[in-house]
Amino acid sequence: MSAEHAHNADYAAHTATAINATHDASLQCWVESAHDAGSDFPVQNLPFASFSKLAEPQTAPRCGVGIGHWILDISAIEELFEGEAQAAAHACRQPQLNALMAFPSSQLSLLRQQLSQLLCSQDAAVQARIRPALVAQADVQLHLPFKVSGYTDFFASIHHATNAGQLFRPDQPLLPNYKYVPIAYNGRANSVQVSGDKVTRPKGQLRPAAELAAPAFAPSARLDHEVELGIVIGQASTRGQPIAPGAAWQHVFGFCLLNDWSARDIQAWEYQPLGPFLAKSFATSIAPWVITAEALAPFHCPAAPRSAGDPAVLPHLLDDQDMASGGIAITLDAALSTARMRAEGIAAHTLSRSNARSLYWTVAQMLAHHTCNGSALDTADLLGSGTISGEGDSALGSLLEITRGGSQRFTLPSGEERSFLQDGDEIILRGHCERAGFVRIGFGECRATILAAQP
Amino acid sequence: MSAEHAHNADYAAHTATAINATHDASLQCWVESAHDAGSDFPVQNLPFASFSKLAEPQTAPRCGVGIGHWILDISAIEELFEGEAQAAAHACRQPQLNALMAFPSSQLSLLRQQLSQLLCSQDAAVQARIRPALVAQADVQLHLPFKVSGYTDFFASIHHATNAGQLFRPDQPLLPNYKYVPIAYNGRANSVQVSGDKVTRPKGQLRPAAELAAPAFAPSARLDHEVELGIVIGQASTRGQPIAPGAAWQHVFGFCLLNDWSARDIQAWEYQPLGPFLAKSFATSIAPWVITAEALAPFHCPAAPRSAGDPAVLPHLLDDQDMASGGIAITLDAALSTARMRAEGIAAHTLSRSNARSLYWTVAQMLAHHTCNGSALDTADLLGSGTISGEGDSALGSLLEITRGGSQRFTLPSGEERSFLQDGDEIILRGHCERAGFVRIGFGECRATILAAQP
Repeated sequence: MSAEHAHNADYAAHTATAINATHDASLQCWVESAHDAGSDFPVQNLPFASFSKLAEPQTAPRCGVGIGHWILDISAIEELFEGEAQAAAHACRQPQLNALMAFPSSQLSLLRQQLSQLLCSQDAAVQARIRPALVAQADVQLHLPFKVSGYTDFFASIHHATNAGQLFRPDQPLLPNYKYVPIAYNGRANSVQVSGDKVTRPKGQLRPAAELAAPAFAPSARLDHEVELGIVIGQASTRGQPIAPGAAWQHVFGFCLLNDWSARDIQAWEYQPLGPFLAKSFATSIAPWVITAEALAPFHCPAAPRSAGDPAVLPHLLDDQDMASGGIAITLDAALSTARMRAEGIAAHTLSRSNARSLYWTVAQMLAHHTCNGSALDTADLLGSGTISGEGDSALGSLLEITRGGSQRFTLPSGEERSFLQDGDEIILRGHCERAGFVRIGFGECRATILAAQP
Repeated sequence: MSAEHAHNADYAAHTATAINATHDASLQCWVESAHDAGSDFPVQNLPFASFSKLAEPQTAPRCGVGIGHWILDISAIEELFEGEAQAAAHACRQPQLNALMAFPSSQLSLLRQQLSQLLCSQDAAVQARIRPALVAQADVQLHLPFKVSGYTDFFASIHHATNAGQLFRPDQPLLPNYKYVPIAYNGRANSVQVSGDKVTRPKGQLRPAAELAAPAFAPSARLDHEVELGIVIGQASTRGQPIAPGAAWQHVFGFCLLNDWSARDIQAWEYQPLGPFLAKSFATSIAPWVITAEALAPFHCPAAPRSAGDPAVLPHLLDDQDMASGGIAITLDAALSTARMRAEGIAAHTLSRSNARSLYWTVAQMLAHHTCNGSALDTADLLGSGTISGEGDSALGSLLEITRGGSQRFTLPSGEERSFLQDGDEIILRGHCERAGFVRIGFGECRATILAAQP
């Protein structure tokens, strides 16, 4: 095991961060497509989703787990689970993951362990019992996986903060608080929609140039994506009891891809002095698959190294084990496909590849900050990481950064040019984790197409 | 009827803004205390609350309506309601108002009409049937009246915006967007608590002077109140369908007192560039009583006049009838009581009296702005008006303003001095509406005491 991925047994006391038998690369799953090269959903992943069968549109959605090309309808095999896993399996009868997510991580770990055993069972009777509960992903609709309680968006990528700040303040891209405070703002929970749902271009007050006295109410002309990781809260915390960074992972149910759509022109005009509001609240897309914290245990890594001269982390945000292994190495890819590219059969154009390991603040520090004033986290709170950018031009997680504020247009394989998004454009986010000795796991997709503004 | 209070029948097509028999000053309610001079709850008010009897702590809360010194347990007299009012009355069996609030305003108006008739009935049998369902307010606990869906805080008082801005930018107190954009930010819904619940002083990162390089994590030393009006959303709007200002009132269930507690030192350090976060999310207090939009119909007034030279309201926020009668005249009072004052029997010290009629943006404009990008409003969304200050030193809705940023301390009747709040201090908000020819209605109280920070 490389030092980079070294795990400390104390820190990993929470099942969410401990490597165990469910991560074993030698597991033999009897669901064949789970072994396909490049599959997002090997048996080491077991992500949760809310689904309904396309052939049964009247039936309420329920919760399942992704395996290969299938989704396992857990509620159809509920009696196969034992002990404390039974109640967790029973919660999968609900149309969304909220009830499941409220269970203690230890109990969710038991469910995962039994799911892994069932899907690797060599007992033909067990396989025969489960097989009818496997539904082809092509035959289901995936729904918003959980009803979002609160939505908070962080600003944890120092590369993004620097790039965005540079556009406004070339001499001082980072504000003085950045290296002390895991900056965040409250988003609007009801803006969150599932991958596949289209995004209507928002209208808003725009003032294209500062010399124009009056703004106009018009469709946004600077519509952008933001590559983010969504952190999904499982067990709630208690009001008045801040979460210590060393105890944060027991509150993390999992992660999902998140696209924090942003109307840069609306934002520029509205955001002083109280922050972004309508520039963000028209839509936020998340992937339908929630990858559990436990599935990601092998992909922990040290927190991103701080630069020489950076201030020390304040004590309430500091945990040595978190600094040693509280980072998380997730590769995130963004691609753009225009209507013409789709019509002409041209593959989506890669916009960026970045990695969550470069975030300036760890997941645990975000939770500790969020609660350090006594505020509670609730089950199904969604915390966006903020746009994840990295070093170099190929790791820019928004068009704002790629085009230097819209000033540098780029050309697509179709010959079309873009600065910001046009109607018909589709953004596709993907994510995966890889590490020698472990099986690659993926995050599915988060995609949405831009519709023209309402007349 | 004075021009100031003129109502236009077209604008008032929504029951929420139409004056009708339930507002009649000559109504004879048989519940005696409803007629007490200065009572907040005459039969013309009929505010809703969630309550449980102190003597029955095991029983789930339910919804009732305030009348004099009593709360009427609507679920106990459900069979007295007729037609469409029945379903609304049935929803009062729920522990919070959310189900009731989702009804169309026309149906809520029927419930109000029948409540008014029942409480004014001269039929002794009806009175005898209802009397056991009247519970003394002294014998109940009032709960958070509704589970808050989303919490948005506006900044709609130009006096407050100017006063606060002056502390930071003496030359340009108001930012260029203020007179175009009804500025707002997303708050944290789970911060909302009911009057009476204490507020623990938050800790956070503080940097008392800009010359100090590093902030410290410590209890806030600049804890403040903000006098606000809470707008409670009833019927949800549809995503993608902005609310026109002329159609806004059908989405307003009612209003409540709101104290948007603020830690000024945490706010000053954290708020750039994404707005306030931990400075607000530790606690937001609301009164237990929701005054219905319909009860307030007689107290509509013209929107606050814009100053000469102010820009025209943009078309999507402009409705002539809204400008003529979309304002709302509610007097708001704030008072401070210290632990020593309470011990010595000294009455609470008045801090301010201001009025919602002075808001730069109307309620309808706030709803229109909130949804103009396609975002939906949900039932039980809570919209804070922002701190309501007025002209003059007696109309300042926060200690930040009263003390000019903490620089001018003031003396209490006990001889104690204050700039910001000390542990043990209690803030009490009250509100009422008065108009010649109509009965005064009140908002109850929103109060909370400051507890010392956690060690």
